[in-house]
Amino acid sequence: MARSGPRDAAMIVSMSPGATKEDIAAVVTAVTSRGCEAFVSRGVSRTVIALIGNTEQIAQTDLGAHRGVAQVVRVSSPYKLVSREGHAERSTVWVGGRSAGPVPIGPGRLTLIAGPCAVETPQQTLEAARMARAAGAVLLRGGAFKPRTSPYAFQGLGEAGLKILAEVGAETGMPVVTEVVDAGDVELVAQYADMLQVGTRNAQNFSLLKAVGRAGLPVLLKRGMSGTIEDWLLGAEYVAQQGNLAIVLCERGIRTFESATRNTLDISAVPMAQRLSHLPVLVDPSHSGGRRDLVLPLSRAAVAVGADGVIVDVHPRPAQALCDGAQALLQEDLRELADSLARLAPLMNRVLTVTESTEEPGARVPVGA
Amino acid sequence: MARSGPRDAAMIVSMSPGATKEDIAAVVTAVTSRGCEAFVSRGVSRTVIALIGNTEQIAQTDLGAHRGVAQVVRVSSPYKLVSREGHAERSTVWVGGRSAGPVPIGPGRLTLIAGPCAVETPQQTLEAARMARAAGAVLLRGGAFKPRTSPYAFQGLGEAGLKILAEVGAETGMPVVTEVVDAGDVELVAQYADMLQVGTRNAQNFSLLKAVGRAGLPVLLKRGMSGTIEDWLLGAEYVAQQGNLAIVLCERGIRTFESATRNTLDISAVPMAQRLSHLPVLVDPSHSGGRRDLVLPLSRAAVAVGADGVIVDVHPRPAQALCDGAQALLQEDLRELADSLARLAPLMNRVLTVTESTEEPGARVPVGA
Amino acid sequence: MARSGPRDAAMIVSMSPGATKEDIAAVVTAVTSRGCEAFVSRGVSRTVIALIGNTEQIAQTDLGAHRGVAQVVRVSSPYKLVSREGHAERSTVWVGGRSAGPVPIGPGRLTLIAGPCAVETPQQTLEAARMARAAGAVLLRGGAFKPRTSPYAFQGLGEAGLKILAEVGAETGMPVVTEVVDAGDVELVAQYADMLQVGTRNAQNFSLLKAVGRAGLPVLLKRGMSGTIEDWLLGAEYVAQQGNLAIVLCERGIRTFESATRNTLDISAVPMAQRLSHLPVLVDPSHSGGRRDLVLPLSRAAVAVGADGVIVDVHPRPAQALCDGAQALLQEDLRELADSLARLAPLMNRVLTVTESTEEPGARVPVGA
Amino acid sequence: MARSGPRDAAMIVSMSPGATKEDIAAVVTAVTSRGCEAFVSRGVSRTVIALIGNTEQIAQTDLGAHRGVAQVVRVSSPYKLVSREGHAERSTVWVGGRSAGPVPIGPGRLTLIAGPCAVETPQQTLEAARMARAAGAVLLRGGAFKPRTSPYAFQGLGEAGLKILAEVGAETGMPVVTEVVDAGDVELVAQYADMLQVGTRNAQNFSLLKAVGRAGLPVLLKRGMSGTIEDWLLGAEYVAQQGNLAIVLCERGIRTFESATRNTLDISAVPMAQRLSHLPVLVDPSHSGGRRDLVLPLSRAAVAVGADGVIVDVHPRPAQALCDGAQALLQEDLRELADSLARLAPLMNRVLTVTESTEEPGARVPVGA
Repeated sequence: MARSGPRDAAMIVSMSPGATKEDIAAVVTAVTSRGCEAFVSRGVSRTVIALIGNTEQIAQTDLGAHRGVAQVVRVSSPYKLVSREGHAERSTVWVGGRSAGPVPIGPGRLTLIAGPCAVETPQQTLEAARMARAAGAVLLRGGAFKPRTSPYAFQGLGEAGLKILAEVGAETGMPVVTEVVDAGDVELVAQYADMLQVGTRNAQNFSLLKAVGRAGLPVLLKRGMSGTIEDWLLGAEYVAQQGNLAIVLCERGIRTFESATRNTLDISAVPMAQRLSHLPVLVDPSHSGGRRDLVLPLSRAAVAVGADGVIVDVHPRPAQALCDGAQALLQEDLRELADSLARLAPLMNRVLTVTESTEEPGARVPVGA
Repeated sequence: MARSGPRDAAMIVSMSPGATKEDIAAVVTAVTSRGCEAFVSRGVSRTVIALIGNTEQIAQTDLGAHRGVAQVVRVSSPYKLVSREGHAERSTVWVGGRSAGPVPIGPGRLTLIAGPCAVETPQQTLEAARMARAAGAVLLRGGAFKPRTSPYAFQGLGEAGLKILAEVGAETGMPVVTEVVDAGDVELVAQYADMLQVGTRNAQNFSLLKAVGRAGLPVLLKRGMSGTIEDWLLGAEYVAQQGNLAIVLCERGIRTFESATRNTLDISAVPMAQRLSHLPVLVDPSHSGGRRDLVLPLSRAAVAVGADGVIVDVHPRPAQALCDGAQALLQEDLRELADSLARLAPLMNRVLTVTESTEEPGARVPVGA
Repeated sequence: MARSGPRDAAMIVSMSPGATKEDIAAVVTAVTSRGCEAFVSRGVSRTVIALIGNTEQIAQTDLGAHRGVAQVVRVSSPYKLVSREGHAERSTVWVGGRSAGPVPIGPGRLTLIAGPCAVETPQQTLEAARMARAAGAVLLRGGAFKPRTSPYAFQGLGEAGLKILAEVGAETGMPVVTEVVDAGDVELVAQYADMLQVGTRNAQNFSLLKAVGRAGLPVLLKRGMSGTIEDWLLGAEYVAQQGNLAIVLCERGIRTFESATRNTLDISAVPMAQRLSHLPVLVDPSHSGGRRDLVLPLSRAAVAVGADGVIVDVHPRPAQALCDGAQALLQEDLRELADSLARLAPLMNRVLTVTESTEEPGARVPVGA
Repeated sequence: MARSGPRDAAMIVSMSPGATKEDIAAVVTAVTSRGCEAFVSRGVSRTVIALIGNTEQIAQTDLGAHRGVAQVVRVSSPYKLVSREGHAERSTVWVGGRSAGPVPIGPGRLTLIAGPCAVETPQQTLEAARMARAAGAVLLRGGAFKPRTSPYAFQGLGEAGLKILAEVGAETGMPVVTEVVDAGDVELVAQYADMLQVGTRNAQNFSLLKAVGRAGLPVLLKRGMSGTIEDWLLGAEYVAQQGNLAIVLCERGIRTFESATRNTLDISAVPMAQRLSHLPVLVDPSHSGGRRDLVLPLSRAAVAVGADGVIVDVHPRPAQALCDGAQALLQEDLRELADSLARLAPLMNRVLTVTESTEEPGARVPVGA
């Protein structure tokens, strides 16, 4: 399985002041024998070697192990397919078409995704979906497989939850995005979902990334809670390598020393990721802050910083939620969110993504889950 | 020097399952002997003691050192003067009046502060100030004492820089905010400045906090780069204890594992600090991101999240700046920033703070520095 | 699938000063209706409610969503099977027995695990294994499935690598520990390995944790690079819930702002984990520091802090390694490591784990991979 | 104030693939006009410019502001006086001589510093000092000026505390190390102390660093809780620039997401700092962990990793301590610590630093404080 990495990468090897000619020559040989160019810059006090070419190959040889090497620094992006270098225009990803018209996420648009954190019952899911729909959401989120830190916490309904989601999505005219937590489940989840979500805890589960890359569905890729922006884009590159470029990135907060919020929303990561990659970037203000009263201000910040949309938790009765009720929006919050998005969108030269309602009056709770 | 702390604090002492009656009694005695109330909750498997009252005194006794204690947790805010509990209305801080009308920072308003990172020459400072003024800035920022990580980096002009700032402030009709880095300099800086800034590296320099608290000028308190929101508010409490409540908080990014940006702007800290404290909260998007192209999006995010204003670096010729040129805004950036603020303010129910121009046409470079 | 959580947990609900009697009553009802005890402590200024019992159930209701609640704090450990509460004696885990005698890891012993980061060829693996063996290693580590941040980096030999490992392990008399990265691969890997490793990127891949828990082999569970000690122990609890308590924890560095080392070895986590859990705790100094010259000092620190063993990378020719050559030990480093361990062990009241050599003189490179 | 920085530094400017010849020329001009050498490496896909010389000057021009620049990376150490490059032998710092013989800290030795976190009374200080002395401590630590996060916490006795320390130091034959928190206090503290400590919160209080550099006493420089190793060494460089190279570095834990310990002891920073700088490096296990039961294991780890000594808190009655009682060692802990150090020292080829006892039998509590 031959893999060719990015061709335009660069690395810098800074030699120690005491490095000998032989030390330098050994580094140059190691580099050129792998097909890279090596440029030696001899200063009065220090020598620096610049490597240009397919340096990913070189990284594997771990130049740092050579004698006389003081430091090795990579100075260019190690991803290619998702990079904006050579792909200047930002991409739009389309989701759905199964039971409702396809929904776009990307530049010039503002897309709202909403739904319950976890699918609990058909009734709760339908109520949440209708709340979401009424607030302008065009995609339904909801978890059937829940990765929970504690094994004693609610783990999700599994396939039964997927069925509920699909039925509610059809009922309310919203394509469904749901998380998949295991490569072995991808096929199953893909039968019910319109978009596959990879969560923060699986951001470097490379088997899963490859599997969703092969599934033929768009992917919502959350940033790892300890993942750098580079890690995140390399995760996307794993998906892209399988031939799937319908990837939407989602910033959801990183882990820092601050404990007043559940995570620290890295708002700067939105414009940074958009500059480095052509993929759309969403923000999840619910999981970032972990508090209902932060969702609206963080949503506004997300739109103002240039995000292509937001994804939020809603629940008809948060106090009884089986998962993350503290951050779920209520009906009145949703109305305020919808109002804010509508007013902010034109300022950002964006159009709110809408879909025609397909829901019949008097539609009933789906049966069978 | 008797100090009475917050009266309505609480702590929880969770005893180990194996703790004896004597262990519990010893904790209760230690607590009540310091004038706090102790409530013992005996569950089937575990005993918990709730302490209510002036628990700051108790913290000093370090209950964790008692036998049978499993965990000690503080569950309420340890600050009082700057807390929003008992001070529901958010405060407005007024700056200046020396050579220009006083400028308000607080709820319902949106205040722009701008100027050069460092004062280099009268000419550069005046040009930067005019750029700032033209973009709607009503306060002039600029550093004469620069705390630089490296002793080999430009350290600021000192008093000569203060003079330039004061002259340029008067010339352009903008009160001046500038950093003070040592308690011994407070008196000197207060002769020239309208507002004293305490920088991120001095956020826990308590001598300095006390000194600026006594200086009779409003204070701009940046968050420490590794300070929690609680640390930050306790820093403000140090200032407030000296009888000075004219404190403006400023979020400027925290240190995390992400290195793509200079710091990680903790955008959630803005609404959190506003909820916990009645003090105004600004955002510094220049030092957070450390990149010019992030200043505009982060400024928009700051306003959208509810900040009471932003403070930005400008420089007429960034490529020649002696400090942080990479993040200084250019004329065209400023115009876009001004435009964004003007359009976002009404959405946030805020009015842009303006001052009448006092600058005469043809005003000249100030002399004497 | 009824799950009963830890019975002796506790949570504290701190009410706002303005909370009403009704607010308090509502919280008490919500709690007691789920079978927990609620103890209300009314102080002069503030009320605190202590919940004791199976509070994991309560966490799901997200008390924070109730009116008048200021803060909710959990004050006891949410894990049970791996907790040291109720299991005071520290455990020993035995590995192997397939082709060599079983090897113990646990209190009173000091166990060295060594081998190549990645299996590349039979020759390289055998040479590395012999280096490891000569230095006193009793278990062979080596990766056949490599989770790599970049998709362009070497991904491991897969099953071919497993075969090499098994043959080299048999040849050198060392049971084999190797990483499994996907629940779907567990059965395959279990055919060749004596111990299954879950790596840092999969520390919250709960499907994988459950799968290795069912595989009937001991598990080496690395800490997530952004995982708290509590997250780590909850990960172990996932494995334990499947009936498998043969779990060895491994500290391997966490992600912080410091970039001089690859990760920050959290040396304090070793005694902390040993205090909180009865499971053995190892240290991986190779991946923590990412530098050969740190492996020896960090190994010594690990032993001195009380670790039950260390696991290190070795490579006969690091400069040609396909993975992490910069941190692989050389023959001379290994000798020094062996010497250090031998001298430190008695100071820590530990005995170096040894196995009788089973390797015949003149043994040859294994065939068939 | 002409400052010449390190001459042998290097920076790398990586140009964007689309950078023009003019862009490249502009960078080269900017660099060479400041007296640095510029080496241009043109690869097929990308151009890299290596700068060698006094690049600290260049850093000020912020090359990142130039058009076509993709990334700027510094690849060598920005400090000079404290660097080990050009100063291969590690330094020994001597403390005291005022009322007791001078005490060495440095290679080949193992030095124990102990004493109360805060000076409370003459009696408590003398008792703690005798405990320290009995355990082999040769320097007395103790705080008279306490930087406390909360203004409601005990702030120290000030000059009265300094007097107690000096008297107890003379009484017990131990030179005194104590913290100074403000440049304005340096002269006062220097009248009583043998070594000036700069604490973690003042690690970037550059006024204070300069002032202690001029005081003519050795300096104990704690690492900032959010300071990188580079920040720390640059802080030392500030002291060194004042002509004072009698600096001892002290690792005391950094701030991370892990909250089970007060800070995260960065044990790897010890060998790293010793490799980068010739200055001695101590470890403070008391403030790192914040728990008594971690002090002994962390002290052992510190010695085993190669630290030149440890500094610990002791208190005769921790439960009544006014500051950090939870981490203070008791008599029996100290005995175990002394025993561990004595056994570990020879393994590390170190000799325990000892002083002859100068304390008379029956010595009494010092008068006058």
